[in-house]
Amino acid sequence: MENCGNYLATMRRTGPLVQNITNYVAMNVMANVMLAAGASPAMVHAREEVGEFAGFTPGLTINIGTLSGPWVEAMLVAAMVAQERGVPWVLDPVAAGATGFRRETAAKLVALKPAVVRGNASEIMALAGDAGRGKGVDAADGVEAAEDAARRLAGITGGVVAVTGPVDYITDGKRAWRVANGDAMMPLITALGCSLTGIVGAFVVGQPVAEATVAALAYYGLAGEVAARLAKGPGSFQVAFLDALYALTPEDVTAGARVTVV
Amino acid sequence: MENCGNYLATMRRTGPLVQNITNYVAMNVMANVMLAAGASPAMVHAREEVGEFAGFTPGLTINIGTLSGPWVEAMLVAAMVAQERGVPWVLDPVAAGATGFRRETAAKLVALKPAVVRGNASEIMALAGDAGRGKGVDAADGVEAAEDAARRLAGITGGVVAVTGPVDYITDGKRAWRVANGDAMMPLITALGCSLTGIVGAFVVGQPVAEATVAALAYYGLAGEVAARLAKGPGSFQVAFLDALYALTPEDVTAGARVTVV
Amino acid sequence: MENCGNYLATMRRTGPLVQNITNYVAMNVMANVMLAAGASPAMVHAREEVGEFAGFTPGLTINIGTLSGPWVEAMLVAAMVAQERGVPWVLDPVAAGATGFRRETAAKLVALKPAVVRGNASEIMALAGDAGRGKGVDAADGVEAAEDAARRLAGITGGVVAVTGPVDYITDGKRAWRVANGDAMMPLITALGCSLTGIVGAFVVGQPVAEATVAALAYYGLAGEVAARLAKGPGSFQVAFLDALYALTPEDVTAGARVTVV
Repeated sequence: MENCGNYLATMRRTGPLVQNITNYVAMNVMANVMLAAGASPAMVHAREEVGEFAGFTPGLTINIGTLSGPWVEAMLVAAMVAQERGVPWVLDPVAAGATGFRRETAAKLVALKPAVVRGNASEIMALAGDAGRGKGVDAADGVEAAEDAARRLAGITGGVVAVTGPVDYITDGKRAWRVANGDAMMPLITALGCSLTGIVGAFVVGQPVAEATVAALAYYGLAGEVAARLAKGPGSFQVAFLDALYALTPEDVTAGARVTVV
Repeated sequence: MENCGNYLATMRRTGPLVQNITNYVAMNVMANVMLAAGASPAMVHAREEVGEFAGFTPGLTINIGTLSGPWVEAMLVAAMVAQERGVPWVLDPVAAGATGFRRETAAKLVALKPAVVRGNASEIMALAGDAGRGKGVDAADGVEAAEDAARRLAGITGGVVAVTGPVDYITDGKRAWRVANGDAMMPLITALGCSLTGIVGAFVVGQPVAEATVAALAYYGLAGEVAARLAKGPGSFQVAFLDALYALTPEDVTAGARVTVV
Repeated sequence: MENCGNYLATMRRTGPLVQNITNYVAMNVMANVMLAAGASPAMVHAREEVGEFAGFTPGLTINIGTLSGPWVEAMLVAAMVAQERGVPWVLDPVAAGATGFRRETAAKLVALKPAVVRGNASEIMALAGDAGRGKGVDAADGVEAAEDAARRLAGITGGVVAVTGPVDYITDGKRAWRVANGDAMMPLITALGCSLTGIVGAFVVGQPVAEATVAALAYYGLAGEVAARLAKGPGSFQVAFLDALYALTPEDVTAGARVTVV
């Protein structure tokens, strides 16, 4: 892929309104990340309105980080509305393997055919039924260990699966890419993975899903590389990262993307 | 108004305890904004205690950003207690026009006579029954388009209505002001509008409501101007903005306020 | 205590997975603080999974900052599981004296024998049944006024009680320490107290509880001192504080800790 920057340019031009049902930890930083990138996030999750809102938004992301009974209902309603309307919605299966409640919820959401599943290796393996080692929110397995699971999961959803880590792996079940952008400090800032899901949710609106996902991951990782050059620790990294998401141009992304076709 | 800084000085001297029922996205940044300014925020929203707490706090703000059934009940209880006690409470009708659930909730809260309603143009128009264009949390209408709605809404509540945007418009139904402070980067940081509602909630404690609201908006916008001079993007803007809220003196505010009587 | 840094070194080497049931205001910053320090936080609080998760985590903290009925149930379940498993869990009784709902919840949690209670003076006094002056989340009483309450509370729980403020007081009912590290700007950043509870929760995993608590407080206060030298206000303080938590070495902590045995 030689034109990653084009996907950023299109996203910024359209500034898509993306509904996000995400966890309490991520809400603020995810909204800031999406605003800095040029999208228009809306954090709407109440059962009483989630379906109505999903009825007019062009984008949707669902993250199971901090679950509860009513939220699960709201997630299912929103995903069903998105599926009916042909909206490409993105699933973030946080710590999917950690508890039975998470495994059940994730399975119900997978059945509603997310256009993209974005998770770490342990999460993708849990979703595909493999016995990973992850218990918490951090990956305990390497990306390569999850490639087979990612392909099988893509076969189940008919969509794209992105395994993120030091080098990301993206597949639509037939084709596959690797994205080598990013920095080792990113996992030290909470909810940067959740926030990436929002960026993917904005990129895939009106664009080819697999390619837009690859471009979103390259853009995000590149912002991490810029931030790392300025940061003294995870505090200043956060600041520089938001600045970089805002400042990076499509040309920067095309030039800096480290994407390989597998 | 030539003495905007005096309202900041009084607020800092009294350091009012302000109860805030706000959305999940805004809670952290709103508390930090209020602490940096010199107020004492308390995020208390549970049905089980919201009324008891509202029974002794001198200030209250209510924000409908992330609604749910139990929260709506808690909002109504807190607003009723405030109304009974004569506490000047502030309503932030986030995305009031987006869904039926929001329209109903906002209408119930308006009936409990907020001393101030603080929203963007689309939100104020929705509250006044006008057909605005806003669907998400961002304004899709200009401030001037909402001036008539603001005056009518002030007639309904008997209080003050503040429409914020590039140039803010504040009215108590008879008098009106414009505040031209602020910076174009402020909408790129999530929950800065919600947090402003907290600042208004602190300023109006024990001070004339309309004038204190005008002063709060001038102070907040001025902090944005200071931050913009130091920021490279929305990340460093947030940092500089909190520092500026903390560092600005009453004299700075009086000198820098750009307030005009309409 | 001459070896405060050793407790940091052990915590970083083990990187304990600590489950945190905390308030909405604190979740993000607490996770970032714990990640910067070297721990592995997980924010898991739903009734449907809280017990299962508490069944395998080596650490647990519970904070009553933003209560609701279902969350109280989840807190009690998690604390019971921790007590049965011998996991040293930490209680943060935010604004424990403010409302009846908080007093009742705090009393139920105290009965489940937290290994550490970490609060400000007003909160510790409220828990011990004394009439403090605190109504909001900020302390209205000095640390010294709470020392007797702390000793009595330690007698009730059989654990450690830490009263934090300008100079912290830590006791296990028999022995006592004072920690003089910290900076006056720390109370101006919301949830830094809540986040400290997470640091204590990570330090006490597999280490002597009283000594690990003292070391955690010294480390945290020392990071505040480093941040204060770089900060222009509460915005830049937050950034520098996270950087300092990340950068401080065990040797720095041993050299900078200001601990006295009472």
